[in-house]
Amino acid sequence: MWADYEQDLLAVEDRLLQFAGDANDYIRDVTSHIIRSGGKRLRPLLMVISSRLSGYSGPDMTLLSAVVEFIHTATLLHDDVVDHAEMRRGRPSANQVWGNQAAVLVGDYLYATALWMATGIHIHEINDVLTLACRKMSEGEVLELMLDNNLAAREEDYFNVVECKTAALTAGTCRMGAILGNLDPLRKKALEDFGYYIGMAFQVADDTLDYMAQKDRLGKTLGKDLSEGKMTLPLLHCLAHSPTPQREVLVQRIGQGEITDMHLGEVVGFMKTTGSLDFSLERAVSFMRKAKQSLDPFPDSLHKQNLLALSDFIIERDL
Amino acid sequence: MWADYEQDLLAVEDRLLQFAGDANDYIRDVTSHIIRSGGKRLRPLLMVISSRLSGYSGPDMTLLSAVVEFIHTATLLHDDVVDHAEMRRGRPSANQVWGNQAAVLVGDYLYATALWMATGIHIHEINDVLTLACRKMSEGEVLELMLDNNLAAREEDYFNVVECKTAALTAGTCRMGAILGNLDPLRKKALEDFGYYIGMAFQVADDTLDYMAQKDRLGKTLGKDLSEGKMTLPLLHCLAHSPTPQREVLVQRIGQGEITDMHLGEVVGFMKTTGSLDFSLERAVSFMRKAKQSLDPFPDSLHKQNLLALSDFIIERDL
Repeated sequence: MWADYEQDLLAVEDRLLQFAGDANDYIRDVTSHIIRSGGKRLRPLLMVISSRLSGYSGPDMTLLSAVVEFIHTATLLHDDVVDHAEMRRGRPSANQVWGNQAAVLVGDYLYATALWMATGIHIHEINDVLTLACRKMSEGEVLELMLDNNLAAREEDYFNVVECKTAALTAGTCRMGAILGNLDPLRKKALEDFGYYIGMAFQVADDTLDYMAQKDRLGKTLGKDLSEGKMTLPLLHCLAHSPTPQREVLVQRIGQGEITDMHLGEVVGFMKTTGSLDFSLERAVSFMRKAKQSLDPFPDSLHKQNLLALSDFIIERDL
Repeated sequence: MWADYEQDLLAVEDRLLQFAGDANDYIRDVTSHIIRSGGKRLRPLLMVISSRLSGYSGPDMTLLSAVVEFIHTATLLHDDVVDHAEMRRGRPSANQVWGNQAAVLVGDYLYATALWMATGIHIHEINDVLTLACRKMSEGEVLELMLDNNLAAREEDYFNVVECKTAALTAGTCRMGAILGNLDPLRKKALEDFGYYIGMAFQVADDTLDYMAQKDRLGKTLGKDLSEGKMTLPLLHCLAHSPTPQREVLVQRIGQGEITDMHLGEVVGFMKTTGSLDFSLERAVSFMRKAKQSLDPFPDSLHKQNLLALSDFIIERDL
C-alpha cells in the first residue's frame, strides 16, 4: 500500500524539510528532530490517496500533505509539554532536549507556517475545512485535559475527545482530497466520512494498544495513559464493570505517575476479567467497518483498494 | 481618540465574549479571565481606525478586530508559560490559575478560532496578510527565546525580534483595514507602514518603560525584563557602553531571577550614565515619527488625526 505512493510520500518529505529549513537554525533543528523521528505519515498518506482517488495529483496534494503533517507535529510538540513527556517514538522528546519553552513556541511556528502554506493555495473551501478541523482539534485537546484523572468521565466524553482531537483532522484531510479533485457533494461527504471513521478507529485502537502492545514494537511505554490519568475507553469500561474492591485498586492507579510492571499487569488482568480490551477493540473494528462502508459510492480502483487496506492496517498493525 | 470609536470597540468586546462563550465552560472561563483583564485593545483600535480611514465600517471590521485581539491574547497565554509569569496586568496570570497545560491549549484554541473566523470572510488577500503576520510573530517568539541571557546579542537582533513579534501583526492589522476599504496599492502600503512603525515604536517604548515606569501606573513589575534575561534595547546599549567593572555587574544581574529594588536602582543608574534610556526613547520617538510620515498619502480627516494622536499616545502614555 505504502509502495504505491512512495514517490508521492518522498515529495512530501522534501516539502516538510524544505519548510522546516526555511526558518532560522534553531527552529530547523527542533523541527527536523521531530519530523525525522519516524512518524507513520498517516495523515499525508490519507491526503495523497484521497486526492488520487478523486482524480487530483498536482502540487497542492503534496503541499497539503505537508500541511496536515505539520499541524499534527505542532500538536505533538504541545502534547509533550502538556503531558511532561520524556520520550517520543523511542527518542528523547523535543521538550526534553530543548525545553518546554522551545516546544511551545516552535509548535506555534509549525502551526502558523502550515496555515500560511495552506491559505496560499487560495481555495476558500480548503481554508474552511482546515481551519474548522484545527479549531476542533484544539478544543479536543482542552476537553482531554479536563478529563484527566476525572472519575466521573463517561464513554461519550471519551468519544467526544477522540472525535475532536483525532477524527476532525483525518476527516478534513480526506475531504480536502475530494475538494482538490472537484468531486460532487455526495462523494466529498463520503471521503470525509471515511476520514472521520478511520480517525476514530485509529485512536480507539491506539488507546487499547496502550494496554496490550509489546514495548519494543511501538517504541512506546506501555501503561503511559494509565500513569497520566488518561480516561481512555478500556479504562472507562473496566471502571464501570469492576466490583468495588477492584474499582478501588483502579482508582488508586489512575494518575499514579510511576506504574510498575506488577501494577500494570494487575490492571490488564482486571481488563481481561471485565472484557474491556475486547470491548474496546470491537469498537475500533466497528469504526473501521463504517470507514470501509463510507467508500461505497466509489467504484473499485487501486486507490479505493488501498484505502480499504489502510483501514485494516489501522486495526491490525500491532495485534 | 478612544471616544470616537466607543461604539465600534463595544461591538468588538461583544464579539470577543461571543466567541469565547462559544466553547465549553472551561475554555470560556480561561478565555474570559484573560480577555476581561483589561488589555489596551491597541490592535482592535488600529483595525477600526484603519478600516474607517479606508472608508469601510461593515461587520468584517468588527470581526477582524476580534481576530487580531484573539491572536494577541493567544500569544500572551503562551508567553506567560514561556516566561513562567505569575502576574499579568496586575492579576494572577492564566497559567497561575489553571496551570501551564491549560494556558498552552487554550492559547491554541484561541489562535485556531481566530484563524477560522478570519478565513470565513473569504478574502484571500486578508488570509495571506494575516497568516504571514502570524508566522512572523511565532518566528519572533522563538528568536526572542534564543536571545534570552545571550550576551552576544546585538541591537540588530533585538530590532529583528521586535519587527517579528510585534510590528508584523500591527502592520498586518492596518493593511487589512486598507484591504477592507479596497484602497489602491500605494495607500495599502502606507497604512501597512504606519502599522509597522507604530508597532516598533510601541515595543521599544514598552521595553524602555520597563526600566522607567512607576509600578502602580502600569500594573507591571519593574525590572521584569532584567530578571528574565530579556536583552532589550536599553540593556544592550548600556552593556555596549559600560566600562568593564560596570559591565561585570550588569552581566551578573541579567537573568538573575529576583531583582531587588537596590539592584534595579543600580542598573537604572548605569543606564543613566550611559544615556541608554534616552537613547532607547529617542529610537521609539523616531519610529513614531516615521509612522506619522507614512500617513502622508492620506488627506486630512478625523481618522487620520486619530491615528496621529495614537502615535503620540504610544510614546507619551507613561512619561
